[in-house]
Amino acid sequence: MTMNRFWALAEGPLPAWPQEDTFVLKEGEIPTPGPGQAMTRTIYVSLDPYQWYYKQQRIEPVDAPCHARTVSQVVRSRMDGFAPGDFVFNTNGWAEYGLMGKDVWRPNYMVPRKLDESSRISHAVGVLGMLGLTAYAGMDLLASPKAGDTVVVSAASGGVGQIAGQLAKQRGARVVGIAGRDTKCRFVTDELGFDACVSHLSPTLPADLAAACPAGIDVYFENVGGKIFEAVLPLFNAAARMTICGLIAHYGEEAGRDSRAMLMKLGEPVFSSRGVRVKNLSVGDFAASHHEEMLAYVGPLVAAGKIKYREDIRQGLEVIPAAFAQMLRGDNFGKMLVQLSLDPTLGQV
Amino acid sequence: MTMNRFWALAEGPLPAWPQEDTFVLKEGEIPTPGPGQAMTRTIYVSLDPYQWYYKQQRIEPVDAPCHARTVSQVVRSRMDGFAPGDFVFNTNGWAEYGLMGKDVWRPNYMVPRKLDESSRISHAVGVLGMLGLTAYAGMDLLASPKAGDTVVVSAASGGVGQIAGQLAKQRGARVVGIAGRDTKCRFVTDELGFDACVSHLSPTLPADLAAACPAGIDVYFENVGGKIFEAVLPLFNAAARMTICGLIAHYGEEAGRDSRAMLMKLGEPVFSSRGVRVKNLSVGDFAASHHEEMLAYVGPLVAAGKIKYREDIRQGLEVIPAAFAQMLRGDNFGKMLVQLSLDPTLGQV
Repeated sequence: MTMNRFWALAEGPLPAWPQEDTFVLKEGEIPTPGPGQAMTRTIYVSLDPYQWYYKQQRIEPVDAPCHARTVSQVVRSRMDGFAPGDFVFNTNGWAEYGLMGKDVWRPNYMVPRKLDESSRISHAVGVLGMLGLTAYAGMDLLASPKAGDTVVVSAASGGVGQIAGQLAKQRGARVVGIAGRDTKCRFVTDELGFDACVSHLSPTLPADLAAACPAGIDVYFENVGGKIFEAVLPLFNAAARMTICGLIAHYGEEAGRDSRAMLMKLGEPVFSSRGVRVKNLSVGDFAASHHEEMLAYVGPLVAAGKIKYREDIRQGLEVIPAAFAQMLRGDNFGKMLVQLSLDPTLGQV
Repeated sequence: MTMNRFWALAEGPLPAWPQEDTFVLKEGEIPTPGPGQAMTRTIYVSLDPYQWYYKQQRIEPVDAPCHARTVSQVVRSRMDGFAPGDFVFNTNGWAEYGLMGKDVWRPNYMVPRKLDESSRISHAVGVLGMLGLTAYAGMDLLASPKAGDTVVVSAASGGVGQIAGQLAKQRGARVVGIAGRDTKCRFVTDELGFDACVSHLSPTLPADLAAACPAGIDVYFENVGGKIFEAVLPLFNAAARMTICGLIAHYGEEAGRDSRAMLMKLGEPVFSSRGVRVKNLSVGDFAASHHEEMLAYVGPLVAAGKIKYREDIRQGLEVIPAAFAQMLRGDNFGKMLVQLSLDPTLGQV
């Protein structure tokens, strides 16, 4: 009989960053759906930095598969509105099979939904899902870039960064990305259409960024923190807006250290003297109210090729821990996904 | 027990172009390798126009899976130099599993070989395999483009066309592509770096092509035939070179009709008066002698991003006949492949 293989967190203290023995491959029976539940086979697993934060906060149930948003196909259903063969957004985690529906644990705003096939189904955990909403909420709703503004986006070739920057371009802003190696920087300018991109690997990052932003910075979309934030800080214009989406550089720090508070403290003299408005983004706050609005705005832009979106798709359950560690190090190129089974919807692009 | 599913040609007369009932899905036991053979699982199936020509010529053994070049992984081996887990180029055809080695039928120049993972394994049926060799032989060896030449490539966004045009760019030529819909034409200029691209869907194709080639045409790489050849013909310069790689527009014509002969007859007045040299390309003639030379030249260009290569990868055995028909109609965007099982080598790009 086919079993359900999945990755769970190993016992013991958590390291700062995931190691080879941080996760354990386990095997169990494929679960049977109860009333109000459906059992689905995972096609794509979304790997995102926040998942490491979940580990550190011990948010997930123990012994269960590591949490992740997934794109799956229904195998058996006792859940209204979901039939075998349907493609769905759900949260099977790092697992080949999973239940959804009644009494199944999930972050409260990650509501299972049926997908149509008019866009790539993998986009449901990306540009047309939580990543698109994160970019839209953090850029358009919280930072309101205007024509002529200089907008800076860190982790510019990553899942959220690439969308956030292109959304600012749609508003007529001049957009400067911060990314890593050369191929990524070229992608950000040549493919995504950012006006410039500087590398955080450059020893002269502060000067490079200043040169790329001769009129200062009006909007900063923060995904990283650390020395990148320090390079941005002196360049803020009066009445600039900053959205803190993530602080990936700090996710490995000791538990209990509040990296957002430390960043606010470091920035305070500049924020107060120049009237910089800083907002923390919690995408869950926007899911119920703005998901449809985001889809109606971003969906057609993606379909028309006006917003490009690069995915970095690895294959096979076995590679998840390695791919996750690479993603946290920035060794991905585009939104990181792992594909666990073939995607029968992949057709003409 | 797991069975081997494969597509075979249905009995009865062959239509001009493949229909829904042209192929039959069959099931058999997974074959057991004899001495000197290995059994492999198919990962990628290459779909190419010549496969329809094979059908029309009834070149393949009956009742066997339809022929195709494949990328596979060895499951069981009694074949020297091939061990379980190895990734290989072979010819499993439209089948989930297949044998290779002693006494297994294959076109004689398609020799199974082991692949390393320093490039994408899917490239072994593409830019670093027969397609790369076709482009290299047809462009560099037979047509010898020189700096300043105007080179025209039809089916410019297809598997061979995209490589052929970029090889001519490497020699300093001005390269004009002919492709179909707008997104493909934009890809040809913006991504592949051709100097211009005209659409064969335009009602004014002859005038469009003339305008894109103000200095006439020195080299023509022919993949299509038909009205595209008719638009090229009047623009040939003295001592131009033409390589006939394929004539996809004619593959649906009645058996026995020699489309190359008809094209030569149509072109004869121009060919003879202007000294145009026409060569037929049969890639098998170059496989033994020039495969390594091609790899040594093209491999580093691909690795360095100087030659781009787009694949159109569909997923699942079931979709092969539909994908094949779409490819013959030009409804692919890049080299057409169908993936039958996960590719564990897919990593950072």
